[in-house]
Amino acid sequence: MPKLSHVDGKGKARMVDVGRKKPTRREAIAVGTVTLSRDAFDLVRRNQVAKGDVLAIAQVAGIQAAKRTWELVPLCHPLPLDGIDVKLDLDAGRCLVMIQASVRTRAATGVEMEALTAVAVAGLTVYDMVKAVDRAALIGGIRLIAKRGGKSGYSASS
Amino acid sequence: MPKLSHVDGKGKARMVDVGRKKPTRREAIAVGTVTLSRDAFDLVRRNQVAKGDVLAIAQVAGIQAAKRTWELVPLCHPLPLDGIDVKLDLDAGRCLVMIQASVRTRAATGVEMEALTAVAVAGLTVYDMVKAVDRAALIGGIRLIAKRGGKSGYSASS
Amino acid sequence: MPKLSHVDGKGKARMVDVGRKKPTRREAIAVGTVTLSRDAFDLVRRNQVAKGDVLAIAQVAGIQAAKRTWELVPLCHPLPLDGIDVKLDLDAGRCLVMIQASVRTRAATGVEMEALTAVAVAGLTVYDMVKAVDRAALIGGIRLIAKRGGKSGYSASS
Amino acid sequence: MPKLSHVDGKGKARMVDVGRKKPTRREAIAVGTVTLSRDAFDLVRRNQVAKGDVLAIAQVAGIQAAKRTWELVPLCHPLPLDGIDVKLDLDAGRCLVMIQASVRTRAATGVEMEALTAVAVAGLTVYDMVKAVDRAALIGGIRLIAKRGGKSGYSASS
Amino acid sequence: MPKLSHVDGKGKARMVDVGRKKPTRREAIAVGTVTLSRDAFDLVRRNQVAKGDVLAIAQVAGIQAAKRTWELVPLCHPLPLDGIDVKLDLDAGRCLVMIQASVRTRAATGVEMEALTAVAVAGLTVYDMVKAVDRAALIGGIRLIAKRGGKSGYSASS
Amino acid sequence: MPKLSHVDGKGKARMVDVGRKKPTRREAIAVGTVTLSRDAFDLVRRNQVAKGDVLAIAQVAGIQAAKRTWELVPLCHPLPLDGIDVKLDLDAGRCLVMIQASVRTRAATGVEMEALTAVAVAGLTVYDMVKAVDRAALIGGIRLIAKRGGKSGYSASS
Repeated sequence: MPKLSHVDGKGKARMVDVGRKKPTRREAIAVGTVTLSRDAFDLVRRNQVAKGDVLAIAQVAGIQAAKRTWELVPLCHPLPLDGIDVKLDLDAGRCLVMIQASVRTRAATGVEMEALTAVAVAGLTVYDMVKAVDRAALIGGIRLIAKRGGKSGYSASS
Repeated sequence: MPKLSHVDGKGKARMVDVGRKKPTRREAIAVGTVTLSRDAFDLVRRNQVAKGDVLAIAQVAGIQAAKRTWELVPLCHPLPLDGIDVKLDLDAGRCLVMIQASVRTRAATGVEMEALTAVAVAGLTVYDMVKAVDRAALIGGIRLIAKRGGKSGYSASS
Repeated sequence: MPKLSHVDGKGKARMVDVGRKKPTRREAIAVGTVTLSRDAFDLVRRNQVAKGDVLAIAQVAGIQAAKRTWELVPLCHPLPLDGIDVKLDLDAGRCLVMIQASVRTRAATGVEMEALTAVAVAGLTVYDMVKAVDRAALIGGIRLIAKRGGKSGYSASS
Repeated sequence: MPKLSHVDGKGKARMVDVGRKKPTRREAIAVGTVTLSRDAFDLVRRNQVAKGDVLAIAQVAGIQAAKRTWELVPLCHPLPLDGIDVKLDLDAGRCLVMIQASVRTRAATGVEMEALTAVAVAGLTVYDMVKAVDRAALIGGIRLIAKRGGKSGYSASS
Repeated sequence: MPKLSHVDGKGKARMVDVGRKKPTRREAIAVGTVTLSRDAFDLVRRNQVAKGDVLAIAQVAGIQAAKRTWELVPLCHPLPLDGIDVKLDLDAGRCLVMIQASVRTRAATGVEMEALTAVAVAGLTVYDMVKAVDRAALIGGIRLIAKRGGKSGYSASS
Repeated sequence: MPKLSHVDGKGKARMVDVGRKKPTRREAIAVGTVTLSRDAFDLVRRNQVAKGDVLAIAQVAGIQAAKRTWELVPLCHPLPLDGIDVKLDLDAGRCLVMIQASVRTRAATGVEMEALTAVAVAGLTVYDMVKAVDRAALIGGIRLIAKRGGKSGYSASS
């Protein structure tokens, strides 16, 4: 029967000990979206067409947040990271900002939380920049789409 | 015509100057969800029934993240905060962890980003604790549901 | 009957809301000690006599930690601070480093935790510098000795 | 004759260079206590009996602080950590909250400061939650009780 | 005779207490430069002409650093900030990136350090992006050019 | 033709992936200066002669900042560090505080930015302590003077 890795037999929290695991090459890829009103979306798109900074700032915020995951998520391990990519694309049909983050490490534990944190904070940063014109923006669909390395090896989901 | 408050006429980023705004009492309430598999949901529920720590840790992580919003979201102002509430509830029918955060301040700018950040990081913390048993968990529906104070006064959305 | 201010009726954690309290002038003074072996104490004293940096570094670490109290103690409010003093003195008779911190603010809540955090981190910093020569050093006696401002007005204990 | 590792020949501060030391498996265990009034102790115990959050929050605060030791203690090295355990127990006879933290790493330097920092910040967090009902709480007895790995191998003290 | 405000009569460090000063509107403007090789300068300029991200990232890094000044500079006060502007311009004749930062607050102490920190960190970020192609880049000329508010009122220097 | 390592083919920011590079022993040495008025310089010198704390605090601030480089410079990697030295010397003839920082690691990427950040923040800290008596202080000359390890091996510049 499966168990929550972060709680002990009494339901108390614990950090998983990774001291018996060897450092291996690992990667995790996460995605998420910010759904905007048509007006807000058009402003972001116009900024992008004019090569403005909106998406660049959200991208940088996502990269920086990935590095601070262990400060934000209490039971995460501090990890060295080899690389972080954060990408934001616009889907004009659905008024979506689509965010994807991939994080790579050589460590004894995975970087799923780092990739998800990058997506979440990039999304929050987009929200911050449109909130004055769109009170109904929504951040969603934050999930892992691929993971490489570690016990479970490669896996991808759509 | 509406404009993005955080970019100047050339599309370059800027922090909004709030120096001409008076500090007023403000509140923002945000919500979000973590969708779990039935198995993962049952583990969280059982932990909760046994008064385990899973939701308590996520709540604390949300409170702490609200205080660090200005470090995470590049164009946010550092603000004193009067109160932060983060609440997590379980919806067994839909296998959802429902998160709600409300943040209050007396400041020259609002606390929407603080409430949204609390929700996002509480959601990431739940994800972290179930990720070993649920590879398809999803964080979503992060949005503002009410805002009080500031120029636009009270407003609530469902 | 007294209650814990940081838990609700169900025992769940909460941050106290200070939104109805007016900012007032407040101060808190805390103390603590690091007990050293005679050898370690003599090294610290000799460093001090030679106007070395050991106590200066611990003092600075204490000042910096006071400013970060709200990051460390989950239910503390982020506060502006007016002044922080940290002082370290040597008690040769008892081989003690005596630490005292006072913190001042104009805010809606007190700065006891800031003063106590300054003392604790100054003590940890002293410990760090002597640990190679004293495996039995002990940090203790961390407590509040005076508090001014707020509901309860002035009070001092010895 | 012993010397302070963190000061040079002139008494000036320095960070110890660990570049010639190989990473090895290391562990450190530290303890400390918070002494409460009978009333405050009973409130904490009742919260615990009701499976409330007081000790869980202090535990999480301790885990998070261990990870940030290098930010707090100026001459500490930033380290990857394999595992952190923080445990709080109640001693009703003496009205004590007893805190124990163990930290494990594979690194070129030890984790004594990480274990001690976890204890100190867990203690501060307990203090924060009782301070409204107990003005005389005291954090003390913070010391190392065991250390494994590194030059000096295993050792334990009581 | 003038004295160092941050040391006491014995030469020991102290944080200036601003508790007797009223919050007033204050601004500080600082500048600095990064001197590049012709090759590196041309790469930055071309990136800028192509509306790439180099200067946008340095700008954001500067804004974020201003908010963290009190964490970096030990005796600085934590302050609420009303606005931060960071601007980077290219001087092709001299192969310079020119950085200017202005910071505004309503507080009991000035924001010179915040403006200077923004300039320094924006400069470090430019350096980071060109360092692979220019081993001789130089960050310099970091100084205050104007200050408004506080005891000394308006002043500007060139 | 040389390229900026931190931007992709479209000028967009990216973090360099170091996952294919082996950890090697690396060192970087950076320098910088703070130019003071004669009066301010004399105050610092007198403090130093009296073995006061001014330069010790700046030294500690530099060491601490080196450890936080990856938080400040957005595209830097989080790295374990083996050692950090920061040294401040006085040049009475030119009224200069001369700062030198060397940083050592065993990692897949270099520590130039860590050494430069240490110098910059030590310089800001000196500035902070003299700013009340010297409105025209200037931080400058921040540059790398030597680098060892990594692809390019040893190199030094004057």
